[in-house]
Amino acid sequence: MNQRLRSIEWVGDKVKMIDQTKLPLKLEFIETDDYLVIADAIKKLKIRGAPAIGIAAGFGIYLGVKNFQGDDKEKFKNLFENVCEVFAQTRPTAVNLFWAIDRMKKTFYSNIKLGTDELKKKLLEEALAIQNDDIQMCKTIGLNGSKLIPDEANILTHCNTGWLATGDYGTALGIIYTAFEQGKKVRVYVDETRPLLQGARLTTWELMQRGIETILITDNMSAYLMKLGKIDCVIVGADRIALNGDTANKIGTYNLAIISKFHNIPFYVAAPTSSIDFNIKTGDEIPIEERGSEEIVEIMGKRIAPEGVKTFSPAFDVTPNELITAIITEVGVIYPPFEENLQKIKESIKSRD
Amino acid sequence: MNQRLRSIEWVGDKVKMIDQTKLPLKLEFIETDDYLVIADAIKKLKIRGAPAIGIAAGFGIYLGVKNFQGDDKEKFKNLFENVCEVFAQTRPTAVNLFWAIDRMKKTFYSNIKLGTDELKKKLLEEALAIQNDDIQMCKTIGLNGSKLIPDEANILTHCNTGWLATGDYGTALGIIYTAFEQGKKVRVYVDETRPLLQGARLTTWELMQRGIETILITDNMSAYLMKLGKIDCVIVGADRIALNGDTANKIGTYNLAIISKFHNIPFYVAAPTSSIDFNIKTGDEIPIEERGSEEIVEIMGKRIAPEGVKTFSPAFDVTPNELITAIITEVGVIYPPFEENLQKIKESIKSRD
Repeated sequence: MNQRLRSIEWVGDKVKMIDQTKLPLKLEFIETDDYLVIADAIKKLKIRGAPAIGIAAGFGIYLGVKNFQGDDKEKFKNLFENVCEVFAQTRPTAVNLFWAIDRMKKTFYSNIKLGTDELKKKLLEEALAIQNDDIQMCKTIGLNGSKLIPDEANILTHCNTGWLATGDYGTALGIIYTAFEQGKKVRVYVDETRPLLQGARLTTWELMQRGIETILITDNMSAYLMKLGKIDCVIVGADRIALNGDTANKIGTYNLAIISKFHNIPFYVAAPTSSIDFNIKTGDEIPIEERGSEEIVEIMGKRIAPEGVKTFSPAFDVTPNELITAIITEVGVIYPPFEENLQKIKESIKSRD
Repeated sequence: MNQRLRSIEWVGDKVKMIDQTKLPLKLEFIETDDYLVIADAIKKLKIRGAPAIGIAAGFGIYLGVKNFQGDDKEKFKNLFENVCEVFAQTRPTAVNLFWAIDRMKKTFYSNIKLGTDELKKKLLEEALAIQNDDIQMCKTIGLNGSKLIPDEANILTHCNTGWLATGDYGTALGIIYTAFEQGKKVRVYVDETRPLLQGARLTTWELMQRGIETILITDNMSAYLMKLGKIDCVIVGADRIALNGDTANKIGTYNLAIISKFHNIPFYVAAPTSSIDFNIKTGDEIPIEERGSEEIVEIMGKRIAPEGVKTFSPAFDVTPNELITAIITEVGVIYPPFEENLQKIKESIKSRD
């Protein structure tokens, strides 16, 4: 049996990551115990996907302080803070990155009384826990979502939400992997996901690595596919979910949701409850990042449009709750009415705190 | 004032064509009086768009017999038929190509009694008439459609249906050019139109050449644009229209039509009545060509997907009539119920024959 690949792993005293910028044409690894190499990898998208970035930062912070010698706690603290700051600067808009840095800081300061070697050990344990927690959460999402997948299923997905983007499994793709491991016959249609082609470059590759039948399409072929009866359900991830269920995700998700509704095909969103922003009531409050024109006018360095053409390039769109069949999380499958049912989740999570 | 560019022109005793494979990065012309160069240009997509191909074939057939010397009618006929066959082989599925060859043949055989020089002159006249008829038809479609365009209009279009694809103006883009010439303020959003990127490569370029504000998007951004209120109407072309109004057009048209309906945005199809196939009742009877996987896994020679990935690549899709607001033709704007109103067109065209 082949060794199971992961986006990032702790091997002995090093980090081993797949260089995702080389995919899908080459499988190359970065093996390093140098935290600056990890920070650079995050910055240059060699590792990407919110959970995977968080995991990389966790290991990176440990490696950044690992070689500190002596017992000067003030010096150690300064080093630790500097290393954290290096990671905070890599992708300043990545929420998971800051969440992971915060976990490392909490571990650091709640164990500040320990000796430096003990403290280092705690940091490594926390970094490993960040990865392990992510894998467990993805597994639970996968298990919850797999109940919605028929024994023979043709599934359409958008962007990349699999093991490359997470500790393992992934969210939307995690459901597919779980159904596959349960012995279900799954065939996955993958939107190429312009502009950055995460579907064509990454999702196809990672599905094929795990032996799943994979069919690549361009983003504008989905309606015809559905009309032919070739799609049983759609599963996508989420960047941010409002309290009413409105979901921000990679640009093109909203198109796909409308088209699914038109063909009466279930449209599922898979995400951890940490993606639910309980502070915003509807998707109207979610700011949409606009990207530069080079992502539109160039594809992998090749210019496709005239010089001087204007572009419009939103990175995300918001799918209104009425187009979503269910939201699949680690605490269960949430159905409409989302206002009511997400409120319950909010309260149950609050009561756990 | 700049000289008005056209996809193909008769200049003195030569054909001058834009080499469309060099667009949008370079404007290069092919000037030739060699019919084999023209046939090669059609074959290699240096000239493309159904009407433009027909025009090129007309001029090409004339040039192929132009240098014939003497009065041997049998030899002349053989040469003429051979030249016609060369063009028939260039793009064997292009309906307009065969329609143009037929026009040239009718002219030839109905004037067969004339001397060879006179007959050549008739062939040149017919080739010029093919181009002129196309321009007039596009102008009429443009005039009919421009009445539907508000004084300030944000229009979304798909693929390339403009002057590069026709004698001049075009169909869907012809309406936009006409509205612009009438002094209306138009802004055009252009779908890049994967897989072959005709929108990004050709439509943006030809709109910009005529001074129209042009904004390029990827095919999956349309729903978000519409939600923002940035689109007043959508205009697309048609490859084939069934008697009930179902319309086959470039893949992605059906996606766009569903998304337009969801946002209550008018969705117009622009096409000459020659695109209406009165022999087929519904779109279900329209065969959909499937293309090779290289158009999906490569973009302008750059590989974007893993080796061995499967693809699905329909060249067209069929938009059901209920999603179409109106069909704009040279005989007028046709509204639903299309079954009834296209039947009337069928009868009026029959009575003209």
